[in-house]
This record gives sequence, C-alpha cells and structure tokens, in this order.
Amino acid sequence: MRKFIKGEITMLFNKALILGIGLIGSSLARNLKEKKLVKTLAVYDKNQENLKKAKDLDIADIYTDNIKEGVSEADVIIFATPVCAFGKLAKDMSSYVKEGVIITDVGSVKQYSLREIEKYLNKNNGSIVVGGHPVAGTEKSGPENGFTSLFKGRWCILTPDENSTEEAIKRITEMWESCNMKVDIMTATHHDKVMAAVSHLPQLIAYSIVGTVADLEGYEHKEIIKYSAGGFRDFTRIAGSDPTMWRDIFLTNKQTVLELIQRFIEDLVALERNIRWDEGDKMFDLFKRTQKIRKDVIEAKQDQPEHEKRIMEELQKQQV
Amino acid sequence: MRKFIKGEITMLFNKALILGIGLIGSSLARNLKEKKLVKTLAVYDKNQENLKKAKDLDIADIYTDNIKEGVSEADVIIFATPVCAFGKLAKDMSSYVKEGVIITDVGSVKQYSLREIEKYLNKNNGSIVVGGHPVAGTEKSGPENGFTSLFKGRWCILTPDENSTEEAIKRITEMWESCNMKVDIMTATHHDKVMAAVSHLPQLIAYSIVGTVADLEGYEHKEIIKYSAGGFRDFTRIAGSDPTMWRDIFLTNKQTVLELIQRFIEDLVALERNIRWDEGDKMFDLFKRTQKIRKDVIEAKQDQPEHEKRIMEELQKQQV
Repeated sequence: MRKFIKGEITMLFNKALILGIGLIGSSLARNLKEKKLVKTLAVYDKNQENLKKAKDLDIADIYTDNIKEGVSEADVIIFATPVCAFGKLAKDMSSYVKEGVIITDVGSVKQYSLREIEKYLNKNNGSIVVGGHPVAGTEKSGPENGFTSLFKGRWCILTPDENSTEEAIKRITEMWESCNMKVDIMTATHHDKVMAAVSHLPQLIAYSIVGTVADLEGYEHKEIIKYSAGGFRDFTRIAGSDPTMWRDIFLTNKQTVLELIQRFIEDLVALERNIRWDEGDKMFDLFKRTQKIRKDVIEAKQDQPEHEKRIMEELQKQQV
Repeated sequence: MRKFIKGEITMLFNKALILGIGLIGSSLARNLKEKKLVKTLAVYDKNQENLKKAKDLDIADIYTDNIKEGVSEADVIIFATPVCAFGKLAKDMSSYVKEGVIITDVGSVKQYSLREIEKYLNKNNGSIVVGGHPVAGTEKSGPENGFTSLFKGRWCILTPDENSTEEAIKRITEMWESCNMKVDIMTATHHDKVMAAVSHLPQLIAYSIVGTVADLEGYEHKEIIKYSAGGFRDFTRIAGSDPTMWRDIFLTNKQTVLELIQRFIEDLVALERNIRWDEGDKMFDLFKRTQKIRKDVIEAKQDQPEHEKRIMEELQKQQV
C-alpha cells in the first residue's frame, strides 16, 4: 500500500478531492484533515456559500468551484454531492483525471451512482472505481453541520465491481476505518435492496406522515407543533432531512421503493381492520413482535445511547 | 388550598394512591416521594413482580394488591394502569373511596378513560374527577425504567368536566407542576382529536412499518438489524413501546384513528405516484414543507437535545 510522508506522519493519499461539501463531505473532510490522512485536501462545490462556509471552518487546503483545478493531480476523488449530479460531474472531469486515480462516492443508491460515474470514469481512462456508502447522518445538512465523530461506530458499505482493484478497495477501506467506521462489502444490487428496507422506505413514510398531520383540516398548526412531543416530533426529526438528497434517492431506487410501499400499505390496511373489528389480540401480537425487534436492534448495538448523546450535544450547540 | 404538614414541609396531599406502577406511575411516585408532596404514598398493582420491583426501588410507603387497603383514607387517587383496566378498578373501589377524594388519571385517551371512571366514581359517591394526561414517556415500560426528570419541560393536559371542582383542578395542576410539567386545560374531546394526530397515528405507523420491514421475504433478519441505523432503528425505538397500552389506545380512540389512517394512506399513495411518474418537483416541495415543520418544532422548543441527552443517559444506564 502506497503511503505519502508529510513531516513524520504517514499519509493515506497525496491529494484528495471531495466533491460536495455538505454534511457527509464536510465530516469526511474534518476527519481527513484532523487525522492527517492526506497531504493536500481539495473540496469542490458549485455553491459559493457552501465553499465560503467550508473556508471559514478551515476544513481543507483548496476550495474551488473549478472542476479542473480540483481534479488536477488528485489520487482519490470522493463524490459527495446529491447522486443526480454524479453523471455530469464525472463527464466534466473525465479529461482531467490522472492515471490510476481512485474514484469513490458516498451515494445512498449504489446501482445508479456507479452507472452514472462509470459512464465516464472507468478502466478506459485509467480510473479505478470503488462504490461506497457510509451509513451515517443527522437530519441536518450543510458544511457547518458536519462533525468528526459522525461516522464513529457506524457501517460503511463498499460495493466494488469490475472497475475496482484489490488495492483500491483496501485504501478506501482504510480511509473509512480511519473515520472509525466498520467496513462491509457487498454488491450494489444487494446494497440497494437492503437500504430500500432499512432506510428509504422508513424515510418516505416519515415524510408522508409529517405531510399528512401538518395538512389535517380542522386542526391548528400551532397546537400540532405544541404537542409534537407526543410522538409526531420524532418523525419531524427524520423528515427534516435534505430534500434534494432524498428526492434523488427515491427516484433512483424507484422499483424497489415502489414495491415496498405496496407491502407497507397492505400491512397498514390489515392493522386498520384490526382496529375496526376490535381485534386487540392480533394487534397485541404485532406490538409484541416489534418490541422483540427493538431488543434485537439494541443487542446488535445499533442503537447506542452514547453515540446519540454525542449527536444531541452537536445538535444542542447548533441550536444555540 | 389545603396542605398537610409533615415535619416542616408543606404537603400537597395526605395520602396518595397510584394505581399501576409502570413507567409513568413509578416516575410520578419518585417525584411525589423525593419532593415530599404527600404524607403517605400507596401504590397498587395486581402484578406481584411490579410490586416487588417498586418495593426494592423504595419509591412508596405502602405496596399493595388489595384495592380496599390502597384506597382507604386516600385523598387523591391516580389511575396509571392501561386504560382498559380503569372501569373495573373504578367499580372495585367505589364502595371504599372517602368523601371528597380527588380522582385523576394519566390515560392517553380521555373520553374513554373518563367515561369508564365516572360510571362508578362521580358526584353521587362524593368523588371529584379531573382527567389528566402527562404527555411524556420513553419506549421502556415497568417500574424500574421510571425516573424523576421524565416529565421535565413536557406538557400535562387536564380535561376537567362537570365532575371537577376548581379546587381539585388547582391541586392536580400543582401536583404536575411540582413534577416540572407545564399544564394546559382542554375538553376530553379536543384532547383525543389532537392526540390522534400528534401521537396515536404516528405510533401506529411506526408499529406498522417495523412489522413490514421485519417480515419482508427475501431479506435476512440479521442484515436488517445490522444496518438498522440507516433509519429503521428510529422506528424500532418508537415501536418498542408498551403493547398493552397502545392496543388500548387504538381501540378506545377508534373512530378518530381510523379516519386519520385513511388520510395518511391517501397522501402516501399520492407520493407513490410522484415516484412512479418521476415527479421530483412535487416530492421536493413536500420535503421542503416538512423541513419547515421541523424548524417550527425546534422553534417551539418541542425538541430539546438537552432533554433527549438526559433520556439517553437513563437508557444508557439501563442498557448496561
């Protein structure tokens, strides 16, 4: 594994470029810089305000809206914009990438992301592609809301394909492990199927219910907000997430999401019938089962009050 | 306002009886005892295990499964069992209550709760009833999971009716304010309508989606749990709540809940069409709106990272 030396510290990459300096991009930048994993860190964003914020936060070495400048001499490029921007960016940079550059991304939908990237960046022009998805986040977006420990203890899924090499996979693994993530490897197809269930469907339902409750006629908006701690609030937290990112996810993982919506509606209608016909026992059985699933999540250490506490501390700072 | 003196401390009640020593009952008991609000605190539970746990936790003065013993000489009785047990308990105690006793409850559905209680306890036998609902909780149940600060900063809704007196309302208000709650007053009908929207529907949806995702054929349960931090996890937290309590809520606030399920399905189907027909703009507009609603919740201080942090600390202790 090649490593670069800056002073006495071992570097993972010589020049890294992060495309898109939002919540994930800026949190990764913080890690790369604080942990001195790269010699030079460039961030690209077409949004001037984001670039300025990133500069004020001092989380990189180069801040640019010029793709050529960003890509020049980079030995790793991380796509961290909304996934629908991947194709155009890949096309725009394709003539400037250096031979042997490692291309990765943080996109939540892997088949679409890789299809878009690999149209323009692949073995033909010397690019080595390794798809990636760090499964982490808060409902906040923008560079100012990123923080170093965002990734801690979470899974990062890599989805290598015929454009990947063993060495590239190793180095991207090392990059995410340096951010304190656990790394897992699977196909893009399997990733998209699993994420549709554990992430995309739940998110869609949260958006939908917040819309429904907020639109109910005969209710005062103020009162809905006032008593939101009754449960509604938890859904607003989820539905406060980045609209662009999630629109892109639903549109690019369309078939699987549509299938799961149908499954969900079937189950909800069954529950509706249970209520209508006073079938308390059937409801009780379901609620007992979901309670058991909750226990499984806790036992698998996928709900870590300690980590949540840290995130709450970050949110607290941001709300002041 | 009558107050009782024990040593030099002013007491709110002489003898209080809490019926049902679960999450809410035990958290209230902790407050009444720690803040020395009552001279004698009795807790009743028909579940021997809960009684034993409460005794081990030393959160009351009298622990009993004998309703007559509990009720004897009590000047306030707080119903904190699942709501479907209210009617039988009210009937069983009706010959033992003392003249002028204040009856209140913590039930999540107020029309049903009060109807059940007031069948047996009302002006005819000298009982003064003031309905109440402290809007607070975690997904945990049982006496061992209660804690004093559970109520802090949350709303408690009182729903007085023709069985209430000004003085009783004042004293129940003072009891919850002593637990650091903010108290609001409305009719039972209005309460049930508002709670169906901000609490009952969201909870039902959480149960439903956890059931759907867990049951998907062609998925490994282990994998669903492993990646649950993608979003599913947040729903399991909600769907880990007490099955009996929630079954009772859905069955006793049936009509309003059924109406809201229909509204929710309509909106979800509209969103499904947006995905199918690539109507990204319509989705984006909805997600922008829900983001604004999230801001409203934060501005109304209904999502308090500080309070969440405290709850996480409690959960952390309990998970060790």
